[in-house]
Amino acid sequence: MDGENNLCVVLHSKGDLRLEERPIPEPGPNDVLLRMHSVGICGSDVHYWQHGRIADFVVKQPMVLGHEAAGRVVKVGSAVKHLNVGDRVAVEPGVPREMDDFLKSGRYNLSPTIFFCATPPDDGNLCQYYKHCANFCYKLPDNVTFEEGALIEPLSVGIHACRRAGVTLGTTVLICGSGPIGLVCLLVAKAMGASVVVITDLSSERLKMAQEVGADFPLLVTREDSAQDVAQRVAGRLGKQPHVTIECTGAESSIQTAIYATRSGGVVVLVGLGAEMASVPLVNAAVREVDIRGVFRYCNTWPMAIAMLASGKVNVKPLVTHRFPLEEAAQAFETTRQGHGVKVMLKCDQSDQTP
Amino acid sequence: MDGENNLCVVLHSKGDLRLEERPIPEPGPNDVLLRMHSVGICGSDVHYWQHGRIADFVVKQPMVLGHEAAGRVVKVGSAVKHLNVGDRVAVEPGVPREMDDFLKSGRYNLSPTIFFCATPPDDGNLCQYYKHCANFCYKLPDNVTFEEGALIEPLSVGIHACRRAGVTLGTTVLICGSGPIGLVCLLVAKAMGASVVVITDLSSERLKMAQEVGADFPLLVTREDSAQDVAQRVAGRLGKQPHVTIECTGAESSIQTAIYATRSGGVVVLVGLGAEMASVPLVNAAVREVDIRGVFRYCNTWPMAIAMLASGKVNVKPLVTHRFPLEEAAQAFETTRQGHGVKVMLKCDQSDQTP
Amino acid sequence: MDGENNLCVVLHSKGDLRLEERPIPEPGPNDVLLRMHSVGICGSDVHYWQHGRIADFVVKQPMVLGHEAAGRVVKVGSAVKHLNVGDRVAVEPGVPREMDDFLKSGRYNLSPTIFFCATPPDDGNLCQYYKHCANFCYKLPDNVTFEEGALIEPLSVGIHACRRAGVTLGTTVLICGSGPIGLVCLLVAKAMGASVVVITDLSSERLKMAQEVGADFPLLVTREDSAQDVAQRVAGRLGKQPHVTIECTGAESSIQTAIYATRSGGVVVLVGLGAEMASVPLVNAAVREVDIRGVFRYCNTWPMAIAMLASGKVNVKPLVTHRFPLEEAAQAFETTRQGHGVKVMLKCDQSDQTP
Amino acid sequence: MDGENNLCVVLHSKGDLRLEERPIPEPGPNDVLLRMHSVGICGSDVHYWQHGRIADFVVKQPMVLGHEAAGRVVKVGSAVKHLNVGDRVAVEPGVPREMDDFLKSGRYNLSPTIFFCATPPDDGNLCQYYKHCANFCYKLPDNVTFEEGALIEPLSVGIHACRRAGVTLGTTVLICGSGPIGLVCLLVAKAMGASVVVITDLSSERLKMAQEVGADFPLLVTREDSAQDVAQRVAGRLGKQPHVTIECTGAESSIQTAIYATRSGGVVVLVGLGAEMASVPLVNAAVREVDIRGVFRYCNTWPMAIAMLASGKVNVKPLVTHRFPLEEAAQAFETTRQGHGVKVMLKCDQSDQTP
Repeated sequence: MDGENNLCVVLHSKGDLRLEERPIPEPGPNDVLLRMHSVGICGSDVHYWQHGRIADFVVKQPMVLGHEAAGRVVKVGSAVKHLNVGDRVAVEPGVPREMDDFLKSGRYNLSPTIFFCATPPDDGNLCQYYKHCANFCYKLPDNVTFEEGALIEPLSVGIHACRRAGVTLGTTVLICGSGPIGLVCLLVAKAMGASVVVITDLSSERLKMAQEVGADFPLLVTREDSAQDVAQRVAGRLGKQPHVTIECTGAESSIQTAIYATRSGGVVVLVGLGAEMASVPLVNAAVREVDIRGVFRYCNTWPMAIAMLASGKVNVKPLVTHRFPLEEAAQAFETTRQGHGVKVMLKCDQSDQTP
Repeated sequence: MDGENNLCVVLHSKGDLRLEERPIPEPGPNDVLLRMHSVGICGSDVHYWQHGRIADFVVKQPMVLGHEAAGRVVKVGSAVKHLNVGDRVAVEPGVPREMDDFLKSGRYNLSPTIFFCATPPDDGNLCQYYKHCANFCYKLPDNVTFEEGALIEPLSVGIHACRRAGVTLGTTVLICGSGPIGLVCLLVAKAMGASVVVITDLSSERLKMAQEVGADFPLLVTREDSAQDVAQRVAGRLGKQPHVTIECTGAESSIQTAIYATRSGGVVVLVGLGAEMASVPLVNAAVREVDIRGVFRYCNTWPMAIAMLASGKVNVKPLVTHRFPLEEAAQAFETTRQGHGVKVMLKCDQSDQTP
Repeated sequence: MDGENNLCVVLHSKGDLRLEERPIPEPGPNDVLLRMHSVGICGSDVHYWQHGRIADFVVKQPMVLGHEAAGRVVKVGSAVKHLNVGDRVAVEPGVPREMDDFLKSGRYNLSPTIFFCATPPDDGNLCQYYKHCANFCYKLPDNVTFEEGALIEPLSVGIHACRRAGVTLGTTVLICGSGPIGLVCLLVAKAMGASVVVITDLSSERLKMAQEVGADFPLLVTREDSAQDVAQRVAGRLGKQPHVTIECTGAESSIQTAIYATRSGGVVVLVGLGAEMASVPLVNAAVREVDIRGVFRYCNTWPMAIAMLASGKVNVKPLVTHRFPLEEAAQAFETTRQGHGVKVMLKCDQSDQTP
Repeated sequence: MDGENNLCVVLHSKGDLRLEERPIPEPGPNDVLLRMHSVGICGSDVHYWQHGRIADFVVKQPMVLGHEAAGRVVKVGSAVKHLNVGDRVAVEPGVPREMDDFLKSGRYNLSPTIFFCATPPDDGNLCQYYKHCANFCYKLPDNVTFEEGALIEPLSVGIHACRRAGVTLGTTVLICGSGPIGLVCLLVAKAMGASVVVITDLSSERLKMAQEVGADFPLLVTREDSAQDVAQRVAGRLGKQPHVTIECTGAESSIQTAIYATRSGGVVVLVGLGAEMASVPLVNAAVREVDIRGVFRYCNTWPMAIAMLASGKVNVKPLVTHRFPLEEAAQAFETTRQGHGVKVMLKCDQSDQTP
């Protein structure tokens, strides 16, 4: 690696995205150095680029983007036992820095001091060489591709959401929003045993994709539809209210729909994020004991995602609709910004641009 | 009982409360006939009297009020095995009518066809003789009084709320609202092992009562306080945010406080009911995985409440601040309406007006 | 139905199985009368026939056998609302008789007074006409056959076992025993998201069936294998110990294997029943927090089983390997006793012998 | 501290216990150095001394004993933020070394590479100066003594056991064995809301102590009693079988009692450890869905234990029956070996021998 470049996609500030070289990092005793292979572009990467911030997270200094990643181990820290040079791994972007109560009790995603790729000020892995805590790099079996490995990140959002929702055998599910996150929730819900999934969207094109991926009932909605009307149409399709609703849009009206639509004793999971304050029918939820649960990223999902990909229980490959070499990052970001396709993948290794 | 009266407190319509005689009912094979002893007046009884309705439940025909009750078995249905004439029992007012999915899965309180005392059109038990499904009458041990038996109903709201909140050993709790429901939540939280309870109210008098009953930190709030300020004051008192908040007011600002105040990964339970729509910081709750859970009445609480009263783990006796004979029901209702004291108890048995 | 026969398969005492006519029963207000269509023969039916008892359940008077059943509604009790004449239904054989604590808390299978088809002294439904509590008859969608409906009973054992085991996405599972119950556990585990299933048996023929139904790793064992050796072979196949073991043989050595084989923090579910006392490595289980959980029949499984069959998430049709008309019950029982095939189905409706 | 001694209680091999000096350790960046104050002697310390091993853990090189400890911070590692010199802390003896799946999912006690005080080859803290990972040192409030801090370790066994048992409001509990661990389980069960606790022992003296600490029904048993008889006597005392049994003896007959005694749908927790193989009525447990769960030490207990001690919800002070200065460790160990009293406390700080 000596003498090699380490090309990185760096966001300097709102709107100022650059391809630039950085030194190849040296792994610490518990780290591995990775030769990055495939990194997906997430909506949040684009959002930082366009707005320079997400909520209280502000880009104040140049930051490498990217957190949906897979690569190959090229150097191993002295204390690392479970990985070897040459291993293909998927990267979990969040690494707790402290052994606090959240980590100790199995909810490390809530740890306030967690390191997280491409959340300011922490650098991401949209680059050629990247070092990461070895315990958050998971070896990929031979039958799982790098791109599948990179897609474990969005898939993890779906896993965490469906797990928080309690999806299991025979669960009926409403998913609000048929974008990339709605689709991974759909894939995961089905793999967990959901019997029927209704999915809504404003776009019939997105609904078509959802159907291809396995949705049972696509439901086209408009901004004018009342929340209660949509809820009734959902019940009509299913013959009964769904056990669980996974809200992926963040739109106030859609959150209202989620509450009205869900069966008494059921669960609404909030994945999409909208305005800080939302006006919602809380009494309706409360007296029917419909629980409202949010998700913050995910935890403990990589091993089950890998098991699921390796066993062929879920097929994420159709989600990748575009690929660009790392050098064409600008074009890749523009494609994502325009909302084309589902997932845009950057190929970071010039010598191996396979999936 | 032949030839005896059965004096009942009957609500004919909004504002029209009457004492009148009805026939003594005949128990069916699975019922018992009770000689009522003590029946507490609930806020909902007063609300029906004042407004003739609660939400979609409208008083359309004369209805006996009362659902916080205890009495003595005077007749036993042919199929009843676990009760005998003379047994002292507490009455669970909700009796599922159908073996539906909610009952089968242990959440019968959500059954849409459930019978419930003094919810129109079902008659309550503020009367002298009342028949009830024997399986929802629970024998009181000798060391539990009739009034304690009647108080199991409000106590059950606290049990269900604390159970839904997951209160256990060392849990820190914020209770919003120090009325009768706030107080039973306080009692139950402590009995479940809560280490510290902060309780809020607009009235310093009510807070004083809370302190007498066991609250660690009373917090006087005003209508002008911002939700975030109150949340910070709570954290200040505890040194850390509470694990759990039990919201008993239904006020929008208090629900907001509940969300802001609760620790990441914690739970907000909505017990108080306010306006149908509420504007709340859902994103704040979602990204910190603070779950929002409602309660609808309760289920499976009587046995544990009796165990708890019999073992002296909780002392509800101080909650009874007023007593009236059944014949003075009008005065008892007026006292409750004016918000005096905590719990007004009607004594239905002229021959035994002991607690 | 007047003037029609009601041919029943009646066990008079150990070894004395007869085909005889009984009156067509009259449904009570909460019942439906069914024209039975397909009834599977269970190992327990054969056991009662061969031994006249199972544990403390002794056949003391003639008893109709059969509890894996589906049929068509021909008469509807006066209080029944959700079923109509002509509806095709699957029958849940256990109906709680009392609203006791087990029922109220959602575990009605544990209710000591439950009615259960073909458990003495309760009659089963291996007959032409049978009445049953309507709330335990579940309407079949058009795309679910009667035989699939009848198979919901054994499938329910698998559902309850996998649910008690906590099988979910990515779970690795060891199933001990590849008989009919092992196979339904396998089907359900896969439908719940299990990534890999290892299954053991003494018979390579049975393992072959398991592989056809979806097992990833069949493992032939012998009576001479030590429990720890088998456990190590399981870990070898998976690369790691399984999260969950479902023990379906009841054999002491297999229970030992189950404990040794399961990952720390995992679960062993005991489905198979053997000798009352078993010598097992409890310390090994305890210090690794491997939980040991039994199952008694099932509860709350029919709706999810129907959802699962209707959505095609599981294919039980290959389990039916033999069919006999009701009139040839003797031959059907003999076939089952000899252990041929997987599931023997009796066709009770002469006019419709379709699956 | 320079020039000071660091007197340690060191076990060299079976039977060879010595008081000797070791260097004062230097804390790493995430550690704190503690001046030990109070350290309790545990049965396992005595067992290592007497037998040189527990199961597969063999004392092969000199090891400092002690793991029930509290002390004062005298030096703070560079990266430690939440502790300061002078803070009084309780020490959680188990510190995970790796961020493995067990730690990530909140069950770090099961991590196979965990550091644990006084489990070979890891040194304990029965000494004057000891360094420990700061995140596993918990600050004591002013109203919690050092000895209470040291007792959090045995208390944690009770917390973990009661939590695994699901003890909550109104739970009825059988505890088998009235030694130190039985007593802490009793204290914790009561604090979690258990309504009634039956406790058994072979010694009436120990039962007397249990009664003083809060047991409702002491039950003297003999080695000749059959498991089923004892189970029936328990049910007789309670009027019903207990929801939960916590087995603290490890004796085979007592485990049998635990299973027979527990209510259908209940839980048996195995705390006591006996012979590797045990002959138990597994079928009885399985068909009544009585779950059998072990415990391995504990996790996530210190914060709730401190909350509980600070709020006065549990009084552990009576458990300390003997105190010795560190210099008299030999006598302290001999006293513990002879089974006198409940808990023997070693006072490590000559300048402060207060509780």
